[in-house]
Amino acid sequence: MKKSDNENTQIVISSFPDGKLKESNFSVQTTTMPKLSPGSVLCRTMAVTIGAGLRAGLQGSANYTGATSIGDVMAGSGIAVVEASNSQDFMVGERVRASTGWQRYSIQKPENLIKVDASADPSLLLGSLGTNGLTAYFGLMDIGQVTKNDTVLVSAAAGSVGHMVCQMAKAIGARVIGVTGSDKKCAKLVDELGLDAAINRRSDNFRAEFKSATQDRVDLYFDNTGGKILQSALFRMAVGGRIVCCGAASQYDTASPEPGPRGIPGLLVNNRVKMQGFLIFDYAEKFDEARFAINQWIENGDINPKVTNYGNLEEAPRAFIELLNGNTYGTTIVSVD
Amino acid sequence: MKKSDNENTQIVISSFPDGKLKESNFSVQTTTMPKLSPGSVLCRTMAVTIGAGLRAGLQGSANYTGATSIGDVMAGSGIAVVEASNSQDFMVGERVRASTGWQRYSIQKPENLIKVDASADPSLLLGSLGTNGLTAYFGLMDIGQVTKNDTVLVSAAAGSVGHMVCQMAKAIGARVIGVTGSDKKCAKLVDELGLDAAINRRSDNFRAEFKSATQDRVDLYFDNTGGKILQSALFRMAVGGRIVCCGAASQYDTASPEPGPRGIPGLLVNNRVKMQGFLIFDYAEKFDEARFAINQWIENGDINPKVTNYGNLEEAPRAFIELLNGNTYGTTIVSVD
Repeated sequence: MKKSDNENTQIVISSFPDGKLKESNFSVQTTTMPKLSPGSVLCRTMAVTIGAGLRAGLQGSANYTGATSIGDVMAGSGIAVVEASNSQDFMVGERVRASTGWQRYSIQKPENLIKVDASADPSLLLGSLGTNGLTAYFGLMDIGQVTKNDTVLVSAAAGSVGHMVCQMAKAIGARVIGVTGSDKKCAKLVDELGLDAAINRRSDNFRAEFKSATQDRVDLYFDNTGGKILQSALFRMAVGGRIVCCGAASQYDTASPEPGPRGIPGLLVNNRVKMQGFLIFDYAEKFDEARFAINQWIENGDINPKVTNYGNLEEAPRAFIELLNGNTYGTTIVSVD
Repeated sequence: MKKSDNENTQIVISSFPDGKLKESNFSVQTTTMPKLSPGSVLCRTMAVTIGAGLRAGLQGSANYTGATSIGDVMAGSGIAVVEASNSQDFMVGERVRASTGWQRYSIQKPENLIKVDASADPSLLLGSLGTNGLTAYFGLMDIGQVTKNDTVLVSAAAGSVGHMVCQMAKAIGARVIGVTGSDKKCAKLVDELGLDAAINRRSDNFRAEFKSATQDRVDLYFDNTGGKILQSALFRMAVGGRIVCCGAASQYDTASPEPGPRGIPGLLVNNRVKMQGFLIFDYAEKFDEARFAINQWIENGDINPKVTNYGNLEEAPRAFIELLNGNTYGTTIVSVD
């Protein structure tokens, strides 16, 4: 074990945000090591991934990350190594995928652990082959039914899910337009990920640029944000278009979400548009199949996973805030030393 | 021919409504009989049907009934009888379904006419076996994928499409909750059409009554209205629920449509809800199949088509306004004497 054998470090929620999330909504606490109860496994977190959806868990009410209370360890998915085990299914030194939360050590029930390849990069396991990649895959393939003839629009296109969606759609042969939060990220989307066009949502000319990029209409809009981009997209959908509702990142980091988009349901009727929400928990039986496909794309060079890595657990709150402010690129990972 | 052999009566749009539609937005004009050009057919309108969707054609811009201009004959579907014919495919005395508009006589191209059974009631051909019934059928069956295990919520449930949706869903074995605009119509929905519950959208206790009626959640919401009822339904959808976007009647008869529903896309994601718009034009190849099924239900007594009938063409503007104000029941028909 690293650090002190008797200490655990945890990032806990010290208050719910009133408006935008601040570092002061979290505090670092040092506690004694959790006790290994019969049948359970002691895990040391190697890395956790952060996604905008976690912000929805901090509204002080139940939601899709579950209800959260003040004083709780911040929730999150991680890769961990088994440090001690009372389960015959897990041996010390094995690596697992787990809901570790933002803490160095956690006690886990064996049924909640999934073994992972000990030689694989934890960033890859958490990002492109983890929740982010799977979300991109099932949203695009199953809900979106993407084809090579589609024009695909992606919001939060440089984000953990978005940058995977963009590359998968390109690999399939679609035309891909990304929306992101800076000119710098727009350039990366086009130059590094091969997108056909990228639009800066913070541009003074956003409306005109959006209209120009979508002049041939949008067959499939992969919506990670809701809000202004969803509103704009609704007016540019092709007949029979599909909107994959993956997240509402524009609505999470605020105490006063925007009103709903205008033109619903009228625009959906006129253009026979389908909007559909999904959660990847529903696809658990197909995770292996999806990981195999994603891994192939990575090996072929069709997908180039991008990671913004923070080097230690105490940086997690800052990483989260930078992600919410649109300052990260690809999957956001916090390594736990 | 009836009336004068040399005169046609037409209801034309004299002004676009500024807010709610008024009778003064229409005027009645008498013109000379239209001339029968080579290859065309002179039709005498027997009846037209009126639906809320026609109101969307009076916003002064293009939309799904097509662009309309001041001075145009009001658009509408009708049943007509052939009075004179320059087409070998149509004989004098045959009855046809056509886009007659609100006028006694019209010149039609043969390719736009569909022959109908001369012994059938025009109200039935325009209502349950016409656009209204077909809209109900494809929306419920194809877009909604209704099953007997569903709780189905229907807005404008006593309307032309709604009362068909309710009865089809009951025939399939679903639990059906209707929302309509008066206590009187609520009673009819339960007593005459066999609904499991009905809610008056104008009730002072609408929220509480809606919440109570939907306490077991809604699997399928057939949305004819948008607005307040869509907003309420979004918060009551079951996991995997489906919203069939058929129309936005609450938004048509106003110059200031409501803002979009709150909780989109968040609620769609959390409950994996699908919202999908449709237009029946896309189902033209399956119309006969649908009419056969609907006719079977009528013959079995599972569907009891309801009609509000206005007795002459000059009443069409009033019929339309009463429909928009929620004062009609079932299909609204204007007979043309």
